[in-house]
Amino acid sequence: MQTETKEILKKRIDIAMGKIPADLVIKNCKVVDVYTGRILEGDIAISDGLIAGIGEYNGREEVDAKKAYAAPGFIDSHIHIESAYVSPEEIGRLVIPHGTTTIVADPHEIVNVSGLTGMEYMIDASKKTALDIKYMLPSCVPATPFENAGAIVEAEDMSDMLKEDAVLGLGEFMNFPGIIEAHDPVLNKLVAAYQENKLIDGHSPGLEGNALNAYASARIHTDHECSTVEEMLDRLSRGMYVLMREGSACHDLRSLLKAVTSTNSRRCLLCSDDRQPKTIFEQGHIDGHLRICREEGIDAITAIQMASLNATECFHLFDRGAIAPGLRADIVLLEDLEKFQVQKVWIEGELVAQEGRYLLPIEKQDISSVKGKICVKDFSKERLKLQLKSNRVHVIDILPGGVVTGKGIAQVQLDQDGNFLYNPEEDIVKIAVIERHHGTGNVAVALLRGYGIKKGAVALTVAHDSHNIIAVGVTDEDMEFAVQQLIAQNGGFIIVHEGKVLASMPMPIAGLMSDQSGEWVDEKLTQLHEIAHRELEISRDVEPMMTLCFMSLPVIPELKLTDMGLFDVNTFQFISVEADA
Amino acid sequence: MQTETKEILKKRIDIAMGKIPADLVIKNCKVVDVYTGRILEGDIAISDGLIAGIGEYNGREEVDAKKAYAAPGFIDSHIHIESAYVSPEEIGRLVIPHGTTTIVADPHEIVNVSGLTGMEYMIDASKKTALDIKYMLPSCVPATPFENAGAIVEAEDMSDMLKEDAVLGLGEFMNFPGIIEAHDPVLNKLVAAYQENKLIDGHSPGLEGNALNAYASARIHTDHECSTVEEMLDRLSRGMYVLMREGSACHDLRSLLKAVTSTNSRRCLLCSDDRQPKTIFEQGHIDGHLRICREEGIDAITAIQMASLNATECFHLFDRGAIAPGLRADIVLLEDLEKFQVQKVWIEGELVAQEGRYLLPIEKQDISSVKGKICVKDFSKERLKLQLKSNRVHVIDILPGGVVTGKGIAQVQLDQDGNFLYNPEEDIVKIAVIERHHGTGNVAVALLRGYGIKKGAVALTVAHDSHNIIAVGVTDEDMEFAVQQLIAQNGGFIIVHEGKVLASMPMPIAGLMSDQSGEWVDEKLTQLHEIAHRELEISRDVEPMMTLCFMSLPVIPELKLTDMGLFDVNTFQFISVEADA
Repeated sequence: MQTETKEILKKRIDIAMGKIPADLVIKNCKVVDVYTGRILEGDIAISDGLIAGIGEYNGREEVDAKKAYAAPGFIDSHIHIESAYVSPEEIGRLVIPHGTTTIVADPHEIVNVSGLTGMEYMIDASKKTALDIKYMLPSCVPATPFENAGAIVEAEDMSDMLKEDAVLGLGEFMNFPGIIEAHDPVLNKLVAAYQENKLIDGHSPGLEGNALNAYASARIHTDHECSTVEEMLDRLSRGMYVLMREGSACHDLRSLLKAVTSTNSRRCLLCSDDRQPKTIFEQGHIDGHLRICREEGIDAITAIQMASLNATECFHLFDRGAIAPGLRADIVLLEDLEKFQVQKVWIEGELVAQEGRYLLPIEKQDISSVKGKICVKDFSKERLKLQLKSNRVHVIDILPGGVVTGKGIAQVQLDQDGNFLYNPEEDIVKIAVIERHHGTGNVAVALLRGYGIKKGAVALTVAHDSHNIIAVGVTDEDMEFAVQQLIAQNGGFIIVHEGKVLASMPMPIAGLMSDQSGEWVDEKLTQLHEIAHRELEISRDVEPMMTLCFMSLPVIPELKLTDMGLFDVNTFQFISVEADA
Repeated sequence: MQTETKEILKKRIDIAMGKIPADLVIKNCKVVDVYTGRILEGDIAISDGLIAGIGEYNGREEVDAKKAYAAPGFIDSHIHIESAYVSPEEIGRLVIPHGTTTIVADPHEIVNVSGLTGMEYMIDASKKTALDIKYMLPSCVPATPFENAGAIVEAEDMSDMLKEDAVLGLGEFMNFPGIIEAHDPVLNKLVAAYQENKLIDGHSPGLEGNALNAYASARIHTDHECSTVEEMLDRLSRGMYVLMREGSACHDLRSLLKAVTSTNSRRCLLCSDDRQPKTIFEQGHIDGHLRICREEGIDAITAIQMASLNATECFHLFDRGAIAPGLRADIVLLEDLEKFQVQKVWIEGELVAQEGRYLLPIEKQDISSVKGKICVKDFSKERLKLQLKSNRVHVIDILPGGVVTGKGIAQVQLDQDGNFLYNPEEDIVKIAVIERHHGTGNVAVALLRGYGIKKGAVALTVAHDSHNIIAVGVTDEDMEFAVQQLIAQNGGFIIVHEGKVLASMPMPIAGLMSDQSGEWVDEKLTQLHEIAHRELEISRDVEPMMTLCFMSLPVIPELKLTDMGLFDVNTFQFISVEADA
C-alpha cells in the first residue's frame, strides 16, 4: 500500500467508475463474498493487479468465467517449504494450480543449516515465483543446546531481518519452556519482535492452564500444533489464532473442525506445516483442506474464509483476502464449492495457472550461497567403531509413526575388543550422526532397533532440526561409503550396498532441497523407498527415509542421537550406550 | 507494544505462571470470551496494566467480582466529541462509567475552526483522561469551497500529523464526489494516508453501484452513514466495515441490526457519531447500543464483539478488544448481558469507574491555544440590512428534523428603500452568517421560514461545518446585540431580547465546546431551550439551537446560507435572495 501512486489510484477509480476499460475483466463470475457470505453475480474489473470493482465492466482483455465461482486466492498459513524437498520457485509451481496464492513459510530448516544466508536465499528465490511467499524468521536456531546446528541466531541477529517487508515476524516459538521460564535470551528475541511490531508464531503442544497463559501473555499469536478440540479452544480463548493442520505427516484438520463454530471460525485458519510433492499431486494443497472441510460439514463460505480472510487478518495482510475493490486480484476460479476443482488462478491480475498447469516460465534463483553446506572433518569408518564395556545396551526403538521413539534395552554381541558386532538374527544396527556444518569432527554412534535393514546403508543430510548427517547401516564400510557418496552429491538421500550407490536424491540446496522439479523429487523418493524395502530389506512398516530424518530431533521423546551423543528426552540428559553405565 | 521492556514481560510471565502475586486480581468473574463465545469462570490476573492470565490467581490487590460478567471495554468507533459540547477530558468522565474505554474521535469541527492547532489541543487534552481517545485526522477542511472555515488542511499539511501514534488515519471522507471524480487534491490526501499506512474513514450516504466501487477502491475503510440494510450490505461486500450509528441525532442501529448475521457480524461495529450529555445521562453510551442489540434479538456475545473485538480489528488496535493474556486490562464488570448495567470499569488495570461514578481526579488541559477563536471585522447592525429589488424572495424553509431544508418562495414586505420588514403575521425572519475566523468582514443575510421566533434573537458559533456565527432575530438591533454578546462570551449559544441576555452557554473552546461539566452543559441547554420556546416563542416543533447549527451546512439539501451567500445545494450554486433575480 505504501508504494501506491496517485496515477495508479486515479486509473483504478476511473476503471471502477466505468470511464475507461479495465486492464482485465473476468466476466460472468459467481463472486464468493467472504464478508457477507453471499454469492454476487457479476464481472470483476482489474486495474494494475488490483480489483477495481465488481459489477458490469468492459476490459482491454476479457475472460468469460461462464458462471464459475470466483474466490479469493487461498493462503497456507504455516508451511516449511524445505519439507517438500523443493525450492521456493518450485513450490510455487506446484501449489499455484491448486489455488494457493500466498503462503506463510517458516524456513526453520535452511536457517538451521545456513543461518540468515539461508533466509536471504529463500527470500530471493521467492521473487522468482508468482506465489507470494511471506516469511517468519525462525526463532529457535539451534532448536536445542544439545546439538550443533549450522548457525546460531540470537536476538541481536534478528532485528535487521525483522525489518524486511517479506518477514512477518518470528517463526514457531518451539522453545516454550524458555518462554514460560522467562529465560533471558528468549525474552530478548520476543522484545526484538515487539520492537519491529512483528508477529510471533507459536508451537505449544500439550501446554495448558497457567503455562499456556504465560505463553500467550508473551503475545504468541498462533498455534498450529493443536490435535484436540480442547487444546484448540484453550488457545482460541487466550487470543491465539489456531492454524488447523493437514500435512503429509500430521492430520489434525478433521478432528479440529469439530470445534469450529460460527462464533470462533474467524480465528481459525488452514495450514499444511509440511506438504510433500506426492501429497500435492494426490490431494492438492489448500483446495484439499477445503474438500475436507466440506466433507466434515463446514459451510463453504466459512471454509473459504479460513483459507483467505481469516489468514489475512491473522497475519495483517490487509491488501488481500477477499474479492473487493482495492485488494490484490488474487483470484481462484472454481467449478463448485464442494470439490473445489480449480479452473484458473490469477495472482495480482495475472493468469498464472489454468486446468492444473502453471503458466509462467520457470526461472530459478542462483543457489551458490547455500549449495552443499557440508563441512565434515576427520570422518572415516574408524569413527564408526562402537566399543562397549558391556553388552547390555540402550537402543533407540523405532515406533509406529516413526517420530516418537522408545528407549529400549537389549543384549548385543561384542567382538574380543568390545566392539559391537552386527547380528543378522537381531534387528539392531548402528546409527551415526556426523556433524556437517563446522568441521567439528563430531561423530556420535548408537544403536537402532526396528528399522529392519539387512544389507548396505542409508545416509541423509535431512535430519531435524540441525540437519547433520545421519547414517544407518549393517557394516561400517557401507556406512562410510554412504556418507562419502552423500557428501560428493551435495547431500540429500542415498542408499548404498557393497560399494555401489543403489539409489540417491542429491539435494544441493543446503542439503535440504533439490533444485529439480517436484515430479523428479517424487520419482526419486519413490525409487529410494522401493530400493530401501526391496534391496536393503528395510521393514515395510517403516517409511525408510523420513523415519531417519527424525532420529536426531532431541525435543521429541524418547531417545534420540545428536552429533553430541545419545540423548534421553525424558530426562533431558545425554546417556551412555551402555545400559549399566 | 513497541515500548514493552523485558522486565515488564518477565514480570507478566511470572505472574501468569503463578510464581509471584499479580498487581491486581479480579476474582470470581464470568469472563466473556469474545473469541469463542464461551463464558469462562475464573480470576483475571493483571500485570502492569495488561492481562497476564485467566484462571486461579492471587494478587497484591484483589477485587471480588462475585460472579459478575467481565467483558472487554467498549469502543465507540466513530464520534465527534465536539457535538457533546464538552472537552475530551469531560467526555471521558461521562462515558467511562458506561463501560467505554476507547473511542475513535474525528475532531472535524475544531479543526475547521482552529486547524491542526485544534487537533493538537484535542490530542493533548486526551492525555488527561483515562479514556483512550484515538483520532482520525479530518480529511475535508474546509468541508466545501462555498464557505470560509478557520483553516485549510491540504495533503501536504497532513503527513506529520498522520505519523502520530494517536492518529489512526483520515477522518470521514465526506468529499466522495472528489474521490469518484478523482480530483487531484483529493488523491493527494489519500496517498498521504497510504504512505503512512493509515486508515481512511468513509462517509457515503446513498452511494451505490460503480460509484461505490470507485469509492471503496480508494481503500475507504469504513462507513457510518448507512441507514438501510441494502446500503449496509453493499458496503460490507466491498470490504468496508460498517459502523452502526445510534447518536443523539441519528438512529440507524435498530434498522441495521436486521442485516447482521453470524457471517457478517465481524465487520459490524457500534458508533454514536454524536452523543450529547443528555443522551448519555438518559441512555448511556455503547452500553445503550448493547441494550438495543439485545432488544433486537442479537446474541449477547455477538453484540459485545461489535463493541470490542470487531472495532479493534477494524482500527488495527491489536493491544485490546478481548480479555486475554497480553492485552490491555480494559475491563467492564456487568451485572448481566441483557441490561448491561455497569458495575465497575478498569482501564489498563486501573479502577476508573464504579456504580456510575468516575473515580479519577479531574484535570483539565489548558485551552489558551483554542480559546475564543473569534475574529469578526466591521460588524454592526448596518451589515444586517437586506435591501431587495423585489418582494418575491427565496426563503430557507425549516423542515421536520431540522437538517434538510426546503427552498421556498414567499412574498415579503419591504420599506420605501426596499429593505426587508419583519411582519409578525408571517413566520419569516432574517438569518445572518457572520464570518468569524479571518476578519474577512463577510456577512451574508437571507430569510428563514418556520422557526416561529416572535421576539429577540438567537446567535451561535456552532454552525456546521465552518462554524461561523449564525444569528436569527426579529430586529436588527436584537441580532446585533446577540452577536456582540456572543463574541464577548467567547462563543457558544445566546438568546437575547431588547438589550438583555435571557440565556447563554459560553463555549470558550474554539466556540464549540464548553470547559464546564456535562451536567452544566445539559442544564444550560435545557434553559436555552425553555427560554427559546417560552420567551422568544420559537416553535415547539423545532429544536431551537441544533436546528440553526445546520443552517450553513452546504452539503445538505436544499437551501443553506454560508458567509459567502445563499447556497442552492441542488444546483451547487449561490443564488440571490430575490426569487426573480
